[in-house]
Amino acid sequence: MAPDRLDNSLLVIFGGTGDLARRKLYPALFNLFVDGFLPPALRVIAVGRRDFTRDSFRQEILLPSLETFSRRTAYLNTYFRPFATRLHYFRTDIYEPGGYTRLGQFLVEIEEEEAGCRGNRIFYLAVAPEHFGPVVRNLKETGLVPARGWQRVVIEKPFGHDLPSATELNRQLRAAFSEKEIYRIDHYLGKEMIQNIMVIRFANTFFEPVWNNKYIDHVQITSAETAGVEDRGSYYDRAGALRDMVQNHLLQLVTLVAMEPPASLATEAVRDEKVKVLRSLKPLNIAAVGKNAIRGQYGAGEIDGQGVPPYRQEREVDPHSITETFVALKLFIENFRWAGVPFYLRTGKRLPVKVTEIIIQFKSLPDILYFKEYGELRPNLLVIRVQPLEGVFVQLNAKRPGNNNYIAPIRLDFCQNCEVGVNSPEAYERLLYDVMRGDPTLFTRWDEVEAAWQFVDPIANAWAARPPLFPNYAAGQWGPPAARELLIRDGRHWWQEDELPPQRG
Amino acid sequence: MAPDRLDNSLLVIFGGTGDLARRKLYPALFNLFVDGFLPPALRVIAVGRRDFTRDSFRQEILLPSLETFSRRTAYLNTYFRPFATRLHYFRTDIYEPGGYTRLGQFLVEIEEEEAGCRGNRIFYLAVAPEHFGPVVRNLKETGLVPARGWQRVVIEKPFGHDLPSATELNRQLRAAFSEKEIYRIDHYLGKEMIQNIMVIRFANTFFEPVWNNKYIDHVQITSAETAGVEDRGSYYDRAGALRDMVQNHLLQLVTLVAMEPPASLATEAVRDEKVKVLRSLKPLNIAAVGKNAIRGQYGAGEIDGQGVPPYRQEREVDPHSITETFVALKLFIENFRWAGVPFYLRTGKRLPVKVTEIIIQFKSLPDILYFKEYGELRPNLLVIRVQPLEGVFVQLNAKRPGNNNYIAPIRLDFCQNCEVGVNSPEAYERLLYDVMRGDPTLFTRWDEVEAAWQFVDPIANAWAARPPLFPNYAAGQWGPPAARELLIRDGRHWWQEDELPPQRG
Repeated sequence: MAPDRLDNSLLVIFGGTGDLARRKLYPALFNLFVDGFLPPALRVIAVGRRDFTRDSFRQEILLPSLETFSRRTAYLNTYFRPFATRLHYFRTDIYEPGGYTRLGQFLVEIEEEEAGCRGNRIFYLAVAPEHFGPVVRNLKETGLVPARGWQRVVIEKPFGHDLPSATELNRQLRAAFSEKEIYRIDHYLGKEMIQNIMVIRFANTFFEPVWNNKYIDHVQITSAETAGVEDRGSYYDRAGALRDMVQNHLLQLVTLVAMEPPASLATEAVRDEKVKVLRSLKPLNIAAVGKNAIRGQYGAGEIDGQGVPPYRQEREVDPHSITETFVALKLFIENFRWAGVPFYLRTGKRLPVKVTEIIIQFKSLPDILYFKEYGELRPNLLVIRVQPLEGVFVQLNAKRPGNNNYIAPIRLDFCQNCEVGVNSPEAYERLLYDVMRGDPTLFTRWDEVEAAWQFVDPIANAWAARPPLFPNYAAGQWGPPAARELLIRDGRHWWQEDELPPQRG
Repeated sequence: MAPDRLDNSLLVIFGGTGDLARRKLYPALFNLFVDGFLPPALRVIAVGRRDFTRDSFRQEILLPSLETFSRRTAYLNTYFRPFATRLHYFRTDIYEPGGYTRLGQFLVEIEEEEAGCRGNRIFYLAVAPEHFGPVVRNLKETGLVPARGWQRVVIEKPFGHDLPSATELNRQLRAAFSEKEIYRIDHYLGKEMIQNIMVIRFANTFFEPVWNNKYIDHVQITSAETAGVEDRGSYYDRAGALRDMVQNHLLQLVTLVAMEPPASLATEAVRDEKVKVLRSLKPLNIAAVGKNAIRGQYGAGEIDGQGVPPYRQEREVDPHSITETFVALKLFIENFRWAGVPFYLRTGKRLPVKVTEIIIQFKSLPDILYFKEYGELRPNLLVIRVQPLEGVFVQLNAKRPGNNNYIAPIRLDFCQNCEVGVNSPEAYERLLYDVMRGDPTLFTRWDEVEAAWQFVDPIANAWAARPPLFPNYAAGQWGPPAARELLIRDGRHWWQEDELPPQRG
């Protein structure tokens, strides 16, 4: 398939001098520009409160953003100038209705100057979610939408704090945008190996026959960070790991691993299957939360040999915070394919390594043949490595070379970024590209958000009702002991990289 | 498992100055010695017609053999002398009964000197098969067998020329040895990756569910040599590729790929399943031979850019020879697991590369999802590489990194001798070790030999009845065009290494 021909459009970024724009959006747009993925007449309008001229914005915001965060800095000399001509800065406060009227005039001016934009408008709300409603209302009331062409709105997590607040937020968006026009970003879905899960499952005939409870023992999904909350303390302390990571990213990974094959690869066919998984999650009642939902908060500890402070001493965090920085969950999917197969999820901050990976452990057959003769045979694993290494490997048992029949695990390995110079696109590149070409497959549909909150709310409520004894793990550990115990009591354990056969080559 | 404690014994090698002994047996024994795998009181008696003293044998036969063919030459300085003290030379003609009487006395002397041998005797018949019967008869008539301890006889292919001659040969052996005492060497079974086939299939739960006609499209087995007949022209011209390679090595590979899981790993349980495969081979009648059995003989051509002569000009080959140097077969196994799945076999001399490998091609699903949307999707392959590289890899489809959904084949790879300095044992090391410890699992049982001839004889007979037009392929090509056509007409093709995703690392 050749790259799609993209419609041209205006891309209006609210929060145009903010963190997300600087760290992710401008670098992604620049990388797309370098690779020839931007539509030729695209214009970007950064909206912010601060006082910049077009030039000072380019020099003080845009250039430093690209220098620091682009994976294509080698191209800055050649491409910065032509890229920058696509960008405009527009100063206004998002709560000032008059500002929208002026912005509307500005957009029209650009659309007249650059007829190729054809009145298509994308609004990227790179602002805190409490502003989504007011911005959308203003867009509508001042006539920036409906656009003359198509219109789309892009929003970022958190999409609500629980089901009622998410429902209200959605109502506000829907006042000006249809469901099909709303692009809810879950940046995990833009990651290369996460896009690959469906391909691996459904572009091969090798896996589907064993992809069920007859052959799979359990699934482990880990998304671990070594970082603390950094400069997101204020947001994070209100959210916590359950809402920040599990409700969106981790449950999305569960849907991709567990979904039934869709009827086609069309967006809604895929989303239909994903939401079915979320609706099949066995709800955790209060007793099950006590048993199968583990929370933790880090105390002081060490990361890479460096002492780090406890969560409660992080900037903008309540010194008596009971927010969880770690979650481990055991969940079940109640359908024919997955009945009886636990999915173990864990995520947290200040863990020993930065890694996101999915491990599918296959059942063993302890009573037959090699499994019987060799007590210590390893189970087969399929490991999908999402980050920082991107790849997939299978752990198998094989005869070790030599005159005796030793059996040892081997690793059939594929790593797509282990070689020097390989440089996968950033998630935001793919996602922005998909917004521009109007492909919402990698974005979360409202009913997915809704079903995810329906699963998460009872956990959050049960936890709120019973304050924890925090901190309960030292920074640099894999969460509290209960997270380990969650698998140990089932006769299983979390796989650590150093237990697996080494990567070769 | 710790290495087995081995019984001590005498190992008597008939043909002790011959090619096999020099190229394979002494190097294997030395390598086993270096690695500590020889029983401490083992003595080796090389029997030959030529006039050597113990010292001249060591200097003129043993040392050059090890220097040229051992993978452990680095150890010669330290280990040659203690190794050589284990070896004796005994001069006699194998057709002279008096020689056996003297040999018997010599063995008794050694057994008295080295009480650890305990009267256990291994007779290795490293001589042409027409001598097997006379040697065995003499062993019996002069009382070298029965031994005071246990006794074993080791023989090499060819095990007969057809079923009647094989039956007669077996009768002669059985006059002095029971079936359990006869070790029929098929040196392919000693190769590391061939030993690994059963482990891969039965020490993993990943493959068995898809190891059948529901998921496997077909199997390709290739055993290709670039060499011509070298100094084996006289033997080879009487045998041909069908008898030299297919009847034994290739059909053994078929049994290992196709066998049902045995009841246990015990020798007879494994052999029982292997012979079942051979008995399930669909016989080729004359019409089927014409269609599904392709033969070829090389003419002049090029190997690695060097001109090479035609087969008919090789040393000791009949200038009008109609012996085949290439065979390709399509065969079916008539059982529930394999009904409808063709096994394509090919083997030959003067082919473009030296390689032995097994490729399992899985079915595709052309009408669904990615298979439907992306016309060119590759099938999944499991490739077992036997030699020269030893390993296993799986060809899968995956998303290629980038903003568009390109799908490309990737390779999950394991190679056990790709790294520098890795040095798998030779097949003969394992096989000699197994003879010494009395484990016949990797040797061919009589009923396997019998069933293999039953399958091969009708092909040989049909060919004999219709002389071929030879030569029909140039040295350096993959056999005659009909070998390619055998798969093309089924909508398939022989996989070439350069079509597969490259090995990484």
